[in-house]
Order: sequence, then C-alpha cells, then structure tokens
Amino acid sequence: MQALPSELPEIAADILDRIRTKRPRVHCITNAVAQTFSANVLLAAGAVPSMTIAPKEIAAFVARADALLVNLGTFDNERQKAAVKAIAVAAKNKTPWVLDPVFIDRSKPRATFAKTLVAKRPAVVRLNAAEFSILSGADAEVLAEYAKSKRTVIGLTGQTDFIHDGRRLVTIANGDPMMARVTAMGCAGAAFVGACLAVEPDAWIATAAALIVFGVAGEMAGLRSRGPGSFAMEIVDALYNLERAAIVQKARVS
Amino acid sequence: MQALPSELPEIAADILDRIRTKRPRVHCITNAVAQTFSANVLLAAGAVPSMTIAPKEIAAFVARADALLVNLGTFDNERQKAAVKAIAVAAKNKTPWVLDPVFIDRSKPRATFAKTLVAKRPAVVRLNAAEFSILSGADAEVLAEYAKSKRTVIGLTGQTDFIHDGRRLVTIANGDPMMARVTAMGCAGAAFVGACLAVEPDAWIATAAALIVFGVAGEMAGLRSRGPGSFAMEIVDALYNLERAAIVQKARVS
Amino acid sequence: MQALPSELPEIAADILDRIRTKRPRVHCITNAVAQTFSANVLLAAGAVPSMTIAPKEIAAFVARADALLVNLGTFDNERQKAAVKAIAVAAKNKTPWVLDPVFIDRSKPRATFAKTLVAKRPAVVRLNAAEFSILSGADAEVLAEYAKSKRTVIGLTGQTDFIHDGRRLVTIANGDPMMARVTAMGCAGAAFVGACLAVEPDAWIATAAALIVFGVAGEMAGLRSRGPGSFAMEIVDALYNLERAAIVQKARVS
Repeated sequence: MQALPSELPEIAADILDRIRTKRPRVHCITNAVAQTFSANVLLAAGAVPSMTIAPKEIAAFVARADALLVNLGTFDNERQKAAVKAIAVAAKNKTPWVLDPVFIDRSKPRATFAKTLVAKRPAVVRLNAAEFSILSGADAEVLAEYAKSKRTVIGLTGQTDFIHDGRRLVTIANGDPMMARVTAMGCAGAAFVGACLAVEPDAWIATAAALIVFGVAGEMAGLRSRGPGSFAMEIVDALYNLERAAIVQKARVS
Repeated sequence: MQALPSELPEIAADILDRIRTKRPRVHCITNAVAQTFSANVLLAAGAVPSMTIAPKEIAAFVARADALLVNLGTFDNERQKAAVKAIAVAAKNKTPWVLDPVFIDRSKPRATFAKTLVAKRPAVVRLNAAEFSILSGADAEVLAEYAKSKRTVIGLTGQTDFIHDGRRLVTIANGDPMMARVTAMGCAGAAFVGACLAVEPDAWIATAAALIVFGVAGEMAGLRSRGPGSFAMEIVDALYNLERAAIVQKARVS
Repeated sequence: MQALPSELPEIAADILDRIRTKRPRVHCITNAVAQTFSANVLLAAGAVPSMTIAPKEIAAFVARADALLVNLGTFDNERQKAAVKAIAVAAKNKTPWVLDPVFIDRSKPRATFAKTLVAKRPAVVRLNAAEFSILSGADAEVLAEYAKSKRTVIGLTGQTDFIHDGRRLVTIANGDPMMARVTAMGCAGAAFVGACLAVEPDAWIATAAALIVFGVAGEMAGLRSRGPGSFAMEIVDALYNLERAAIVQKARVS
C-alpha cells in the first residue's frame, strides 16, 4: 500500500478498530516509571500488555506477543539482557518491535547500547530531536538518509512529528502541550506504536496512525482537564472512547 | 463460624469496618506494575501497606505485618528469594498470607515456583481460570477437591467469582467490566484479600468479603467513570467512601 | 538572608515562580512505589525529573542535575550503591541534596545506612517523628541540637511541620488529612523540597517554602476531591495551577 498523507486519518481509525477487535498482545520492556501508565494506555486502546523482564521467561512472553517495545529508560543490566533476548526471539518470529532510546542524550552507555540495537533492525525507532542527534550523529535534516541506511522507520516526535521510512515522509501536528507535563507520556506513546504495529504490517503507516490517534486523544483530554493530574486520567479515557469522526476531523497530517 | 452465603454481605461490611478501625499492616511482595495502585487501594480501605523486597529487611517487615501478599507478577530472583523468606516468617508467626500466581499460564518457571508455594500453605490462593488450570492440572470442576487437598481457600475470579475451602462454596457476581481494562486491578484485589485476612480468621469468609466489597466498589466506580482512566481513580474513592447499605444492597452472593 | 516566618509565604511564592521559570533538573533516587507520582509532582511544579539508578550512568545524570533526592524506601543493593555514587558527585559539584530516610523505624539496616548518609552532609533531611527518633536516638525536643551538630536542615513533617537549621525554627500547619491516604505523598513532597533547593540556596528557606506550597496544594485538592483517588489527581493539578494569592492567604506559618 502506498498511502497518501491525506488517507492516513481514515487508516488510523481503521487501525484503532483493528486493535479493539483483535486485542493484540504487546510485550513491553520499559522503564520503572512508565510501566503502569503504559499498561493502562495499551488496555484503554484494546491491546493486552505484558511487562516481565525476568531472564527465565522473557522468551516465552515475546514468542506469544504480536509486537515488542524496547524502551531504555531504566538502564539496568537485567533490562539490557532482557532486551537482547527479546529482540532475538522477535527477529526469529518476525514480530515487529519498536525502540524508544529514552535520554540517550544524557548517558553515553545508553547511546552506545541504542546503536547496537538499531543494527538489529527495529521496525520503528521513536525518539525526540536531541535523541536523534546522538543516535545519528547529525541533525533532523538527515532523517531520510538515516531511516534508509538503517532500513527502519524513524518517528521523530516533538511539537510536530516527522515520520520517515527513507522514502515516505509524513508530518503530524496533533497533541497538547500538557503531554510534556505528564511523566512517561512519550513512553506510553511508543507502547501504542507497538499496538499499531501488531495489526498493521506497514510500519510507516502504523507509526503515523499511532501518533495521529495518540495526539488526537491528547487534544480531547486537553478539553476536559484542569492540569497534568487530570490530563493523565483524561487521555486514557479519551483513547478508550475515541471515535472515527474525531480522528478524521482533528487529524493534522501533511 | 459457619456463615451462610446470605449472611456474607453483612459480614463483609463488618470486616471493612474492622479494617478501618484496626488499620492492619499488609506487607506486599508484588509486581512493579501493581505496587502503587495496590498501596493506594489498601490505604483507601484503611490498611497500612508496606512493599519492601530487600533481603536484609523483609523478615523484619513481615514479622510486624498482620497479613502478607505474595504476587508473582514480577518474577525476578530477588522477589523469589524475598517470597521464600517472607513465607517462612509468616508461617512461624501464624500470619495469614495470600498467593496471587499471576500469568503462570504464560511462564513455566512461574508455574513451577507457584506449586512449591502452594505447598507452603497459603491461607488463600487468588487466581483466574487459566491460572487455576495450570496450577491444578485440571479445570474448575475440581475446585473443591483441589482446595481440600491443599488445605487452602481458592478464590477463583472472573465474571463470577467462586470461593471454595474444600467444604464451603460461595459464588459472587459483583464487579464491573471496566475492571479488566485497568492494569493491576486483580493484583490490588488480592492485596485487599490480605487486608481482610488480617482482621478475619476464617479465610473463606475473608476472601468472600474482599471480593464482595471490591466488586461493589467497582460497580460504584462504574456509575461515575467515563473510561478506564477515571475508573481507576473512582474505585479508590468508592472503596474509601463505601457504606454498609451499598454493600448489603448491591452484593450478589449465592 | 535572615527571613522571618511571616515573610516565608511570599518567599515560597517567589520560589515556585523560579521553579516554573528556570525548570531545574532534579535527579531522584527513590523507591519503586513513589517514582511515577514523584515525577508527576515535579513536572507539575515546573521541574524536570530524572530517575535512573543504573551504576554506569548515575554520575552523568547527577552531574547535570540542579538538586538530588535520596529516598531509602526501596532498599536494594543497586539503590544503595547508586546513592553513594550520586552523593559523591553532588558533593564535588556542590549540588544540594535531600535525604528522605523512609521507614528507618521499621528496618535496622536502613537506619544504619541513613546514619552514614547524614554524615555526608545533606542540605536537608525530611522525615517524620518516628524516623527522627531512630536517627537521632532522641525525641523531637533535640531538633535544634541535632540539626546544629549535623550542620543540616531538619524538616520534621507531621500534622504540623517543624523546620530547624540549628538556629532558626519555623512551624507550618498546612496540609490535608487525605495526604496520609495516598501512597508516596511524603516521598513526592521530599522530591519537591529538592526542586526548591535547586533554585534557593538557603536550605532552611527552601524547605519551608516546599512544605508551605505542597501543604497549600493539598488543601486546594481537599476542596475538590471525594476520596484518596481523586485527591492524588487533584493535588497535581493544584500544584500546577497554584497562584501567589492562594499561597499567601492559606499559609499557616509561625
């Protein structure tokens, strides 16, 4: 499928429907701060999260999952080993996985580890501009080249999101400023990219759909919340209740 | 006491009163995703949670606790060692404990470990049908036999809950579908079984009381919430505010 | 500056303004139950939290932080090593740090470790009366002497808070009873002391400001909440929206 940006809002709504119907399993290796919120975001969307990082059982969980998230926000030895094992199982089973290289701009060991993981072919790398700069050694202008050379989709998030697979670019301008005031919002968004990947084989489309839907849910939450406490609750409700009409009407895609 | 099912709603309200008055200490070895929500559920009910798993101090915490929860949802070496130590202290002090063998249907090492823990005589095992099937090697029809042979109370939760001690069965049909859309809801429910055990020596009554009260709180939350985000908040408020009349009126026990 | 208690409410409002403008980085070594809520409290106030405890990278995070929190609520080996490393970096860089010796009254190894940390000159020790009694070997009457001998600020919290630096005492009577019914409320309060220390060099003033602002936010939350579930959300919103007039009008300082 060669989707045009203008078709993506309808496709995003289709993908959310598929998640609600198929209830895919998303295994998350994610940081301690993000685990509960990410699990609740996945459940609200209709996906089924699991979160174990124990070496004895990670392979069994990933083998049954429909997508995998590897988030580097808690960088302990156990999670690093779990990530390597989990990615090996995912590769063998052709299970798509997302890399979220949190804060690699603040820790060299994380940056080094993230580079070794990119070489293992994640379907998607979701990150912000500072993280991209460390990972690529360059700035966002090389987005297309970097995605092409690594054969992955880059979801560069910020006030505007840029999604590139080396060939196709889409720009998404959804979201709410309050999303930066709730911890683990980006981590939960990356987990939701995993849920979309689980039901959509084109990783570029899946990433765009995830960022449209999550951004629109954030805008709905912004209409009801009075601060970051209520926002964190409202975005979960909004994702659970989100309707096709709201997605199509509010999506800002180009 | 040989309580009849019809007496259980009033008894459940008594037990909640006792928790509010006595403020029992419940030590929880539980998974990383469930810790915060479980602590908040216990505090809302009137109990005092503690959560340490550190080998050096687990014995001291359990020695002062009025009940213990062992939840296998994060299956790391540290928690396994903590569980074994904690159970030894509980056995010595005759402190009742609950086993919650989360996801043993998805991990063989967990299932094996869970079986060794059942042999250590938990007062209650709370689990769902898939987990029971792995633990017992059979289906829910053997509930009575299994409970009898293991000399424990089985709290088999689902749309309808079945509580059996090998002699007495009670069926509870409370709860709200949204409970399945919030992470750690079952784990928090098992922690609340611990709080009830801390103030009620008959483990079958304590388990029934816990599932009635938690289920009714869920129904109250369902009346006010607009999705899983607000539901998670509302069930904590509902448990805090729950009155005898609501418990007795809404309990569906047979 | 030799602030009088009567000047502290205005100064507290100034400090909150500074946090919102400067957006200081606060690195938190805190317990597993408190991580998410503490991060959300810091973000709501305007600070930027980080939470890693990994040995390879803790030094890099602390080196860039404007303040450090060391909370002993999860007492594992990794966190103990992280704390020692982090404090060494903070000392070298003259970065202020807060010690929160959670539950040292329930665990001897924690109490021993807390005493070694006090000797490393935290800017502030925040604790309750039971914890102070273990740390000092005496009761609250020795507050002044203890603070003086350890050259630190003691923030002794309870229904009334006492803040002493060995020379100056201030008493704060803000807060809401529901604060005791939400897990990690004290831990998040200690993280917020860190945020205040990051923008105010006088640690006695910073601690008083933190406890005034957090207490007033709790009172605002109490006006809107219906139980501990909604309270946990409302206090985050209240902190985000808190205005100078409310701080000055509601502060109870003597």
